[in-house]
Amino acid sequence: MTESPNPDGARARELDSSAVFHSWSTQGGRDAIAIAGGLGSTVWDHDGRRYLDFASQLVNVNIGHQHPAVVEAITRQAATLATVAPNHANLVRGEAAQRILDLAGPAFNRVFFTNGGADAVENAIRMARLVTGRDTVLSAYRSYHGNTGAAIVATGDWRRIPNRFARGHVHFFGPYLYRSEFWAGSPEEESQRALRHLERVIEAEGPSTIAAILIEAIPGSSGVLVPPPGYLRGVRELASRHGILLVIDEVMSGFGRAGEWFAHRADFGDGRESVVPDLVTFAKGSNSGYVPAGGVIVSEAVTAAFTDTVFPGGLTYSGHPLAMAAIVATIDAMKAEGIVEHAATIGAEHLGPGLRALAEAHPVIGEVRGMGVFWAVEFVDDPDARTPVSAAFMAALGAALRERGFLPLIVENRIHVAPPCVVTPAEVARGLALLDEAVTAVEQR
Amino acid sequence: MTESPNPDGARARELDSSAVFHSWSTQGGRDAIAIAGGLGSTVWDHDGRRYLDFASQLVNVNIGHQHPAVVEAITRQAATLATVAPNHANLVRGEAAQRILDLAGPAFNRVFFTNGGADAVENAIRMARLVTGRDTVLSAYRSYHGNTGAAIVATGDWRRIPNRFARGHVHFFGPYLYRSEFWAGSPEEESQRALRHLERVIEAEGPSTIAAILIEAIPGSSGVLVPPPGYLRGVRELASRHGILLVIDEVMSGFGRAGEWFAHRADFGDGRESVVPDLVTFAKGSNSGYVPAGGVIVSEAVTAAFTDTVFPGGLTYSGHPLAMAAIVATIDAMKAEGIVEHAATIGAEHLGPGLRALAEAHPVIGEVRGMGVFWAVEFVDDPDARTPVSAAFMAALGAALRERGFLPLIVENRIHVAPPCVVTPAEVARGLALLDEAVTAVEQR
Ligand SMILES: Cc1ncc(COP(=O)(O)O)c(C=O)c1O
Ligand SMILES: Cc1ncc(COP(=O)(O)O)c(C=O)c1O
Repeated sequence: MTESPNPDGARARELDSSAVFHSWSTQGGRDAIAIAGGLGSTVWDHDGRRYLDFASQLVNVNIGHQHPAVVEAITRQAATLATVAPNHANLVRGEAAQRILDLAGPAFNRVFFTNGGADAVENAIRMARLVTGRDTVLSAYRSYHGNTGAAIVATGDWRRIPNRFARGHVHFFGPYLYRSEFWAGSPEEESQRALRHLERVIEAEGPSTIAAILIEAIPGSSGVLVPPPGYLRGVRELASRHGILLVIDEVMSGFGRAGEWFAHRADFGDGRESVVPDLVTFAKGSNSGYVPAGGVIVSEAVTAAFTDTVFPGGLTYSGHPLAMAAIVATIDAMKAEGIVEHAATIGAEHLGPGLRALAEAHPVIGEVRGMGVFWAVEFVDDPDARTPVSAAFMAALGAALRERGFLPLIVENRIHVAPPCVVTPAEVARGLALLDEAVTAVEQR
Repeated sequence: MTESPNPDGARARELDSSAVFHSWSTQGGRDAIAIAGGLGSTVWDHDGRRYLDFASQLVNVNIGHQHPAVVEAITRQAATLATVAPNHANLVRGEAAQRILDLAGPAFNRVFFTNGGADAVENAIRMARLVTGRDTVLSAYRSYHGNTGAAIVATGDWRRIPNRFARGHVHFFGPYLYRSEFWAGSPEEESQRALRHLERVIEAEGPSTIAAILIEAIPGSSGVLVPPPGYLRGVRELASRHGILLVIDEVMSGFGRAGEWFAHRADFGDGRESVVPDLVTFAKGSNSGYVPAGGVIVSEAVTAAFTDTVFPGGLTYSGHPLAMAAIVATIDAMKAEGIVEHAATIGAEHLGPGLRALAEAHPVIGEVRGMGVFWAVEFVDDPDARTPVSAAFMAALGAALRERGFLPLIVENRIHVAPPCVVTPAEVARGLALLDEAVTAVEQR
């Protein structure tokens, strides 16, 4: 990173090192880009250096940066009433809940609002345990559900608290054909075997002890693992058969990311809308993170359990009016501008084909998978053995991309390609060209 | 509650019942006030009915409703950059961190930002466990620390997950002279005995297994339990003696509420600033909840443990720019307008004396305690036996207050009197008069 000649940029970078405690990283030796502004799929630093934001920050800016309707709604609400407690009724909160219910489908009748994804997962788990009177939550090893007490234990990736320090959590393997845990040779076989594995875990743990199966519709941080045909529907059937609640985490996959309002409603080989969860968690794309927000969409059956019984959960900023105003404006703008359909088209016609062409050209790309504006590109040393490239390779690739004005999201041996849903075909073409250049440059070292 | 003639008010109340899932309550039979706007210590509904907000919503609107400087800062930041990921540097985040460090004192050198109080507590616990390599967190039975996985287990009140379902959490009794757990007869004796009890719990659990002692500077939701002389300092000494980190939760007590920037720095009989915690959690008053925010103030020693070691924790909206802009503007305005000092004066000269006079006049008031704009009034059937009044009494009192245009915070047999820090002497006088009227009305039934 070069020094910033702009004093604001220099101060931002200095304070970032000297005053801010950072997540998922060491505190020493920081060298971050200072983001000063943005518009659509682009952000810039204090020196006017522009970057294509192909990470949508942390896969949350689905509507793009600084959408005027969302900024305007926040400004208007701030001028009216910036904060209100959850125990009071508030119009914009009701409007946000109603809009989300309209998108979620007829099985759902209430929305519980939180500040982000982790606390959405926390409250979904709480509801499932209380409704079933059971304790165990099953979730996938390849998953991320957030950083708070129960969400981090439900998480399966390296960040989780190991099971031996937890109670009430069990992990299973989900489908991932490229690195199958089930010796499968086709998507259909991967799906069937993953379901059989899950069934065995349920049997082994005892079905009557299991409150919930918690899965991401499309596991995101773990590699954009689009479920194979019939998998989600099979999980729904297993859960129903055993009186287990199905909690689908749409924090990353929802609100346009996968070219759908909710990824679990897409057609994964059983027709659209063939899977109806008991609880759905959301956050990020619901208002593109313009104001921290998340929540749980609650099915009628779960709501009914709390009609006369107190739900023992809450938080000071549940249904915060600025967050709610941003949700209402985001959903309205995404509908009015056809942004979800646009994301689907970008995936099908531009980003998907473009990434696949890149994979053809570069043997170091082992697999490309995704839908909408939600893709992963997996880098391997050996296309047959599928051995991940080194951390040094990925660091060099990250640097090469940033140098070229492309903000990447790097996870292990993968680049997650996740531009805003409003990304244009021209921006996709430019992003793909930069990716091509950077991969070539690093390959040649 | 009467029907609202205003269609927005009617719709707000209708959607509040039909679409929003509510915290800490049943979902049926809701009848909430729809808050449409506010200014300073007053809010109003859609029909223009005004209420004195003597709850500061959930004890968070310390700067009062719609402070123009904070609204303006949110508007300006929204127009510049509404969201940015925590991995990028951002100027307003750095400015917010630096301002908080300046207030916290020289022992601290980093701030980790979260979305609210619960996730602040979560991350403080995570840090303490990692730094000490120990697992147990000691916290008080009379405490509230938030609603997520670890925070709710650390919580001591009825809302917590019972210890038998938890791991790594142990509860102890804190000082509360009015209902002493230690058969004490004076504040000094209560303090000494509470410390002896805590020491016995530490010894019984094994000092080398304990990562943190987590306490609210002034336990808030549990009844504004101002610590007796020497207690906080004694806890600090016990923690230090055994290599245990002291985490002080200032989510409710901080940022002016107690007439101090941080309640733990007040003089509780050992001089000011005699207690230096290892970690401090904050939220609410830091930006009055205009945008969801919270965080952990990290001491140098704790930061040092993560210089070269990854901190395994994070959240999408850590250091969110709108929240940060609101923190900067809030701290600057509170300093410029002397709001913290004002809160101290209100407590010492108006609210405290006024509430004590009320207690003199009404035998049903058993005790009044607090400081700044942070008070509890405890209602008892029998002043000698100190038996709490019935839930029906408190419900009637709540209704009588709301009818009179006073928004109360009712917890068990108490009214927590917590107006914004900017409350005027005239508003205090009016609030006290309404309280007097309402208590009289309910007593006479
Ligand atoms: C699927 C999923 N669930 C939950 C979370 C946690 O969300 P947050 O960071 O807002 O707590 C994330 C964050 O990336 C996520 O991807
Ligand atoms: C002392 C304390 N800690 C933590 C919390 C939790 O904060 P939040 O509701 O923002 O999660 C509260 C909320 O009242 C609190 O009073």
